[in-house]
Amino acid sequence: MISAMRWHGDAVRILDQTLLPGEAREVDLRTVEEVAEAIRSLRVRGAPAIGIAAAMGLAASLRPFVREPRDAFRARLRRHEAVLRGTRPTAVNLGWALDRMLATAREFEDAANADLWDRLRAEATAILEEDRALCARIGEAGLELLPDPAVVLTHCNTGALATSGIGTALAPIYLAAQRGRRVRVVVPETRPLLQGSRLTAWELSRAGIETTVIADNAAAAAMQRLGVDLVIVGADRVTGRGDVANKIGTYGLAIAARHHGIPFYVAAPYSTFDFSIHSGSEVPIEERSADEIRRGFGRQTAPERVPVFSPAFDVTPAELVTAFVTDRGILRPSYGESLRVLRSPAGVSAGARS
Amino acid sequence: MISAMRWHGDAVRILDQTLLPGEAREVDLRTVEEVAEAIRSLRVRGAPAIGIAAAMGLAASLRPFVREPRDAFRARLRRHEAVLRGTRPTAVNLGWALDRMLATAREFEDAANADLWDRLRAEATAILEEDRALCARIGEAGLELLPDPAVVLTHCNTGALATSGIGTALAPIYLAAQRGRRVRVVVPETRPLLQGSRLTAWELSRAGIETTVIADNAAAAAMQRLGVDLVIVGADRVTGRGDVANKIGTYGLAIAARHHGIPFYVAAPYSTFDFSIHSGSEVPIEERSADEIRRGFGRQTAPERVPVFSPAFDVTPAELVTAFVTDRGILRPSYGESLRVLRSPAGVSAGARS
Repeated sequence: MISAMRWHGDAVRILDQTLLPGEAREVDLRTVEEVAEAIRSLRVRGAPAIGIAAAMGLAASLRPFVREPRDAFRARLRRHEAVLRGTRPTAVNLGWALDRMLATAREFEDAANADLWDRLRAEATAILEEDRALCARIGEAGLELLPDPAVVLTHCNTGALATSGIGTALAPIYLAAQRGRRVRVVVPETRPLLQGSRLTAWELSRAGIETTVIADNAAAAAMQRLGVDLVIVGADRVTGRGDVANKIGTYGLAIAARHHGIPFYVAAPYSTFDFSIHSGSEVPIEERSADEIRRGFGRQTAPERVPVFSPAFDVTPAELVTAFVTDRGILRPSYGESLRVLRSPAGVSAGARS
Repeated sequence: MISAMRWHGDAVRILDQTLLPGEAREVDLRTVEEVAEAIRSLRVRGAPAIGIAAAMGLAASLRPFVREPRDAFRARLRRHEAVLRGTRPTAVNLGWALDRMLATAREFEDAANADLWDRLRAEATAILEEDRALCARIGEAGLELLPDPAVVLTHCNTGALATSGIGTALAPIYLAAQRGRRVRVVVPETRPLLQGSRLTAWELSRAGIETTVIADNAAAAAMQRLGVDLVIVGADRVTGRGDVANKIGTYGLAIAARHHGIPFYVAAPYSTFDFSIHSGSEVPIEERSADEIRRGFGRQTAPERVPVFSPAFDVTPAELVTAFVTDRGILRPSYGESLRVLRSPAGVSAGARS
């Protein structure tokens, strides 16, 4: 399995996803600026991966400064943390992972800088390893939803490139393939940055899983003509009532799935659920640069100054979600009730941290 | 108003739409190979425009051969006609326009070559001019569907670049703007060939009409967040029961419009309606080259040999169409009844030919 991010000494080594599928080049991130730039420009992306990279990056960026005075080091920690938290507003895992790093910092407030740094690095590693376990659990939970053979439509990239494990929405697909089941994946290219055609098609093809790429606007036709059995997508943030903020296009897929009577599943670890907000209308939605539409491929693809509406995410209301596939099992409506299991600090999370 | 195609002497002068929006270059087509290549590679595109260009191109391509023996000239006419008919299978206007040219040829079977050629050129000119009148009628009919102010979502390109007039789906928009009404247009870029962002945004911006470009997968979010009042699209072929073959993505827009309670209109002249077939499943659907998805912008945007599903068109069932906007007025369900008015040889068609 490929590795989206890992430790290389005390640097964060990531696969630069902006170069895929043409080139698989790894780069090492050491400064807070390097980490923030990598997240902002989507060299590392995917809700869980962003959280992991931010946590690892926070630790890495502090490494050269452990000999600073205690107060200066702690002030620097807060500055670096704030920079990383501001890189992308929509994914809740980013704030969640950085919250864990801050909690560790508070816990070891009185420790020597070097000891505090060791704890921060260990916490980032725990987040990395925990995510791998969460992916495996999501995969096991979702496996029962796939018929054999299965035609699965997904969106964007929610696999090994978006996590430290086998992914979220792609996890059941990887497990099904590993266990000899027949599974075919249909993936929309996912404009503007083409994570579907560039990343998902790349990692699934490498794993020998049959993948068909479509234009985003061919999804409804694919449901009509390719015998799609189910849709499964990831999430950047799920609210308390089960509204799903995810990659732009998800909402349209959910509507089309409902129209065709195809189940629509959302796969995510507990850390993606944000019980501090109730409704999807409260989720901040990142707007992408107009130039990704106007000249996204190095060519002029729209008039020079034409206005563009390019939200990075949309919100799918809970009513269109057949079930959530989580590390704590399949959760079905009504979500006000069923999602509560994710609020208790049970399962792999507590296990990995104990 | 720009001109997608016109006579330049006896050549067909077209605006090469593959170069837009970067460059507005006109080219002259004289041979049947040049005309066929221009249609196949979408230098000229849009259902009505394809029919007009094919008719004009048939006449143009025969010009150098009027001194051939009578039988050779007529055999050549049939060969050229067959080549042009085979360029694109989905749009019915292509066959319809060429049928008119063949009917003219039969009518003047016994005439001298030069006289026959004059009649062919006149018939092509009649098709060109008739289309302009049809567009104006569609615009007048559709005007009543637009509130003031109006936010209109369209798809692909159905304007001056797709016809010889003010377009089909864009016709009511042009008229509304000309009459001082406030109208804003939301246009998905329309992968793989980006006719929305490259062509529609270009021609509407030139006309001073406010246009916002979105990624195809942002259409449902646009309906949710931009206050879209109605969707209006063109058609490449409409069946007897009212099923609509149109640019890939249309079907998904129709489903999303229905979900949001937004009316979904299809604008087309009578020549787009094909009463020889009943259901959309009978429409031949052209498949585009996989490389338009894999490296559509000169860059590698998907793995080299990954399978691609890239139909140029999809079929929207009649049940999702709120009304048809035609040169003979607004036609509402049930279409088995209401579309019949298009079968009679009344209105502008007979007028223009008499």
